Amino acid sequence: MKLFSLPTPGRKLLVLAGLAASTTLILSNAAQAAVSEETAFIFNTFSFLIHGALVMWMAAGFAMLESGLVRSKNTAAICLKNIALYSFAGIAFYLIGYNLMYTDVAEGGYIGSFALFYNSSEAELALLGAEEATDALISGANGAGYSVMSDWFFQMVFVATTASIVSGTLAERIKVWPFMIFVIVLSAFIYPIQASWTWGGGWLAAAGFSDFAGSTIVHSVGGWAALAGAIVLGARRGKFGADGRINPLPGANLPLATLGTFILWLGWFGFNGGSQLALGSALDAIAIAIVYVNTTMAAAAGVVVAMILTQILYKKMDLTMTLNGALAGLVSITAGPDVQNHVYALIIGGVGGAIVVFAVPMLDKLKIDDVVGAIPVHLCAGIWGTICVAIFGGASLGTQLLGIVAIGAFVFGTSLIVWFALKAAMGIRVSEEEEEIGLDKAELGLEAYPEFGQGSQSF
Amino acid sequence: MKLFSLPTPGRKLLVLAGLAASTTLILSNAAQAAVSEETAFIFNTFSFLIHGALVMWMAAGFAMLESGLVRSKNTAAICLKNIALYSFAGIAFYLIGYNLMYTDVAEGGYIGSFALFYNSSEAELALLGAEEATDALISGANGAGYSVMSDWFFQMVFVATTASIVSGTLAERIKVWPFMIFVIVLSAFIYPIQASWTWGGGWLAAAGFSDFAGSTIVHSVGGWAALAGAIVLGARRGKFGADGRINPLPGANLPLATLGTFILWLGWFGFNGGSQLALGSALDAIAIAIVYVNTTMAAAAGVVVAMILTQILYKKMDLTMTLNGALAGLVSITAGPDVQNHVYALIIGGVGGAIVVFAVPMLDKLKIDDVVGAIPVHLCAGIWGTICVAIFGGASLGTQLLGIVAIGAFVFGTSLIVWFALKAAMGIRVSEEEEEIGLDKAELGLEAYPEFGQGSQSF
Amino acid sequence: MKLFSLPTPGRKLLVLAGLAASTTLILSNAAQAAVSEETAFIFNTFSFLIHGALVMWMAAGFAMLESGLVRSKNTAAICLKNIALYSFAGIAFYLIGYNLMYTDVAEGGYIGSFALFYNSSEAELALLGAEEATDALISGANGAGYSVMSDWFFQMVFVATTASIVSGTLAERIKVWPFMIFVIVLSAFIYPIQASWTWGGGWLAAAGFSDFAGSTIVHSVGGWAALAGAIVLGARRGKFGADGRINPLPGANLPLATLGTFILWLGWFGFNGGSQLALGSALDAIAIAIVYVNTTMAAAAGVVVAMILTQILYKKMDLTMTLNGALAGLVSITAGPDVQNHVYALIIGGVGGAIVVFAVPMLDKLKIDDVVGAIPVHLCAGIWGTICVAIFGGASLGTQLLGIVAIGAFVFGTSLIVWFALKAAMGIRVSEEEEEIGLDKAELGLEAYPEFGQGSQSF
Repeated sequence: MKLFSLPTPGRKLLVLAGLAASTTLILSNAAQAAVSEETAFIFNTFSFLIHGALVMWMAAGFAMLESGLVRSKNTAAICLKNIALYSFAGIAFYLIGYNLMYTDVAEGGYIGSFALFYNSSEAELALLGAEEATDALISGANGAGYSVMSDWFFQMVFVATTASIVSGTLAERIKVWPFMIFVIVLSAFIYPIQASWTWGGGWLAAAGFSDFAGSTIVHSVGGWAALAGAIVLGARRGKFGADGRINPLPGANLPLATLGTFILWLGWFGFNGGSQLALGSALDAIAIAIVYVNTTMAAAAGVVVAMILTQILYKKMDLTMTLNGALAGLVSITAGPDVQNHVYALIIGGVGGAIVVFAVPMLDKLKIDDVVGAIPVHLCAGIWGTICVAIFGGASLGTQLLGIVAIGAFVFGTSLIVWFALKAAMGIRVSEEEEEIGLDKAELGLEAYPEFGQGSQSF
Repeated sequence: MKLFSLPTPGRKLLVLAGLAASTTLILSNAAQAAVSEETAFIFNTFSFLIHGALVMWMAAGFAMLESGLVRSKNTAAICLKNIALYSFAGIAFYLIGYNLMYTDVAEGGYIGSFALFYNSSEAELALLGAEEATDALISGANGAGYSVMSDWFFQMVFVATTASIVSGTLAERIKVWPFMIFVIVLSAFIYPIQASWTWGGGWLAAAGFSDFAGSTIVHSVGGWAALAGAIVLGARRGKFGADGRINPLPGANLPLATLGTFILWLGWFGFNGGSQLALGSALDAIAIAIVYVNTTMAAAAGVVVAMILTQILYKKMDLTMTLNGALAGLVSITAGPDVQNHVYALIIGGVGGAIVVFAVPMLDKLKIDDVVGAIPVHLCAGIWGTICVAIFGGASLGTQLLGIVAIGAFVFGTSLIVWFALKAAMGIRVSEEEEEIGLDKAELGLEAYPEFGQGSQSF
Repeated sequence: MKLFSLPTPGRKLLVLAGLAASTTLILSNAAQAAVSEETAFIFNTFSFLIHGALVMWMAAGFAMLESGLVRSKNTAAICLKNIALYSFAGIAFYLIGYNLMYTDVAEGGYIGSFALFYNSSEAELALLGAEEATDALISGANGAGYSVMSDWFFQMVFVATTASIVSGTLAERIKVWPFMIFVIVLSAFIYPIQASWTWGGGWLAAAGFSDFAGSTIVHSVGGWAALAGAIVLGARRGKFGADGRINPLPGANLPLATLGTFILWLGWFGFNGGSQLALGSALDAIAIAIVYVNTTMAAAAGVVVAMILTQILYKKMDLTMTLNGALAGLVSITAGPDVQNHVYALIIGGVGGAIVVFAVPMLDKLKIDDVVGAIPVHLCAGIWGTICVAIFGGASLGTQLLGIVAIGAFVFGTSLIVWFALKAAMGIRVSEEEEEIGLDKAELGLEAYPEFGQGSQSF
């Protein structure tokens, strides 16, 4: 279903197919040295599952990052949005999204199939149901080189990441339910359709667009959707003063934001490492090791650059900017974490960290209110990372730009339409009073920190 | 030791044995395609260890969930209880519990052996101590198909989960030391004895009772023990007003409760995935992938249903209820996460989410004070999940009900006895004044948040 | 590069080499039963990566532990230090440290090579770049038995742990930038040089010094560096009263400290389990399972002993001490987590827990101000753990003491020099006023909890 003869993510899948071929070759004259077909199947499946679980963990990272960076009166609402978006996104992707992304995408095509649900292959179910696991049954189940649902799981957690990016930008003023409807549309349609172009083997794959784990396909997509939402929704009350002043509205709980960043960093080993899509050969294991090293080096460089730059520019280090520096480093390396020189990873991630430091005030000047800095981190660094595959990885710059622009235009455009439609149909923003008292009381009728918080003048 | 010829959890173990047989068969005519015995041994062992580590992580999840849902004056005490119960439970299970659960349980029997400690097999130690790892030594060590202590580790983390469930219900008024004594009795005796009936190959296994990862054997057991404790201990001061009013006593830190839920969701991949008890064949890998998908789908459905229901019933979404919806979804799928149609997982988890929404106020009406909602989540949804194996998985409804009732009666009865004995012997509840000033100051002489906190009577 | 013919960490590496040999032997007469060379390569590599990711996660654990144990006015600064030290340490180790630790250490030598950067082997890159993965290419890449960069990743996360230990002791008064310079020197020079003596195959390995995962080489090293820093830096204002009174200065957020401890406990399975350095044989799998069990048993015993001792000594349980008891248990078992009798693990960890209870007040008497108790936990319990390898594991007591003293003298001495040099060159301590208002406002210009906490009059 996902096998096609194209260079880029195709490359990864071809490795799998190619390996199977060469494995057979090797086995005939040196059976002892090689990985058996069934062993490779287990490794590939287990890689999807464990790395996928790490990506699922990123949902907790976004929840903590955003909980830490909003004001206390909006904290419970952002917690609710984060666990809910993960749930709605997963179900929407199960119902519709996955098939649009992967099932029967024409070579060079623009979309997969409209079909409901997704399930284990017939051959897998035959093996599970058999009295005895015969050689023929095992070989049959081994069609793809991995368990079909392990791949589904790994793909599903990626769509949830995309949705998580949006919630951070739009925090503190968006209503819960219209946001959830947007998440459903994003997960069921917008994300899968554009992802089918490359990872599904569609026209961008045919053109040679290269995005290993999704600097563009996941992170910029989340960023574009967030940008469209921020424009339609408008800034928070008090963020941009009438006199042109920009008010910081600091987050209520920075250790939670720090925890969120560490969670995301850990989860990113799954995000990038698992995107090798296989573990069943020495080649895959070597490649994943390189990916892990580049992932951590890029994040580290993002931290160092953001920290030094804020020290120079503002005479103070800025914790939030440094955390976003780590994330920008991670986003930047995501399109090409398989680069074989780790110094490149340091450069890629370091520039990512710098991009955040400069993009955050730029957005402020444009009066676009992005509560957690998700647009600088995921959109700006995502674009940079995708270009890096041309600079450091030998991809065509033109094709990389084509992919960035095409995906950006599609996602920004469709998101804008959906946001406007939601605004017209049901309103997307809480009232001024509700915003003033906070979304927690307004929409949830509770408080995140009922004993602390703004009221605690008693201290 | 744990191999027996019965259908249900036995099924899982038989797969292991069966696979070994069929592997040998395959090897004789197609050595290259299959998993070698030693490779399967490594996979099986590694699955126990990594999945077990994820289950251990659930202890942190319970600690955070409960820390977030108690008032700030009882937060340090609940933190202490959570790390202590994990420690006491683990040691008690090592000293006595494991052998009662697994060692020489008679076919159809009611209990294992009274024997102290547990250790690697002789054959394993022989391999570790050998100058050279010979074929014979490796085969010898491979008796069970996995490292003996990796299985022990995986089983141990489950008993800690059971104990964690109890601490949440009884928070904010139980004394630390009697609670620890209960944990020891639960982990050394009550849990292992009832678990021996099914997972140890005892009479419930013989009857065909099916509980893949423990909706009943782990979660309901924790719930029954908690219910018995809640009855003997009584409600918190101020929870139930003289006029019949139910006061909410909201938790102090909802982002921590959210984090705890995400941790539990992540850990549940280990809980359910590892309960396949093997990874050493394509069949196992396929089965675990299905388990991961069902686990996440059930949790997502629990979230969605709890969120929609609270919106409809109360005109507000409720974060705590939504978090408990996720957990109820997870508990519900735990008895049968290997169901092959993922739509069933959505239904199972969604109904679990609904159960919580209705069970929480019902418990309140019964004046049973469950601080975190552990009884609705673990007991009620646990029963539902166990019945689902009959509805969706082909098990006998009568046998499922037999298991639910037998285990419930045993655990609730013995727990009641232990709680009453502890109450008579040393008292289990702090004094009224101690409860008023909080357990942190009363029992620990410190505060969890010394700089924030309690002053805010404004709420 | 790291293969040498010596008993201790060498033992671990020899197992790898030895296994390869015996595997070949087995294959000739029983190919079907054994692990193929390439399969072992994947297992070994994957163990480094997954266990390394768990060790990386410990950085989050230290961040949360320290965030919880400092006062709110210094919380953002400690968050920044923790994510920054992880980044600086990783880059420094990549630029210089790894080669000093592992590249061409002479047998019985004192240091590796001064060389910049580190990279995949030529043979690995040849395999990655090949059109087809031939048998010869795979065998070539398999030189070390694992992917070169997976080992680098696993080693890198250890140096970050060492640096994390220092930040806790010196919190609440050290300036960010001199601390970062110290971290760079520690990670690029001090840590790698002493580690080369044992793990690089230098003179301590030749002498038979045994430290499985680093009770001395990682934890005591961090502790010595912290002790030197604490002496040069001096105590926090108000910690030691003029009248000899010791003021507690309690931490602002104990649930975060609890979370940090659970994170560290989880990460420690990677720390100790991964230090088997291989997973590609039944022997390795059995050994890692034993390591996991001992790791968790030692931590549990540390908790239980610290809890009971504080109850007896102070009539109150102490949460912070109990958390440190868990960590002391973990540090204690780290030198010998492969001990085959798990009762020994309980004793080793339990004594570790007791050490903390007695060492914390002793440090106070010496007027050494260790904010989080890192010196008792990592230095004192680290020494104890290293001695345990002689008591319970058959190592030479004299050699163990030699290693403890030699490494201690080197690290304490060089750290003292660096701290004094930094003090002379740029000052290492914030001003009295800055300490009074807190490092968050002074160095970062923000607050960690702007809406809660003591400082919130400013709102």
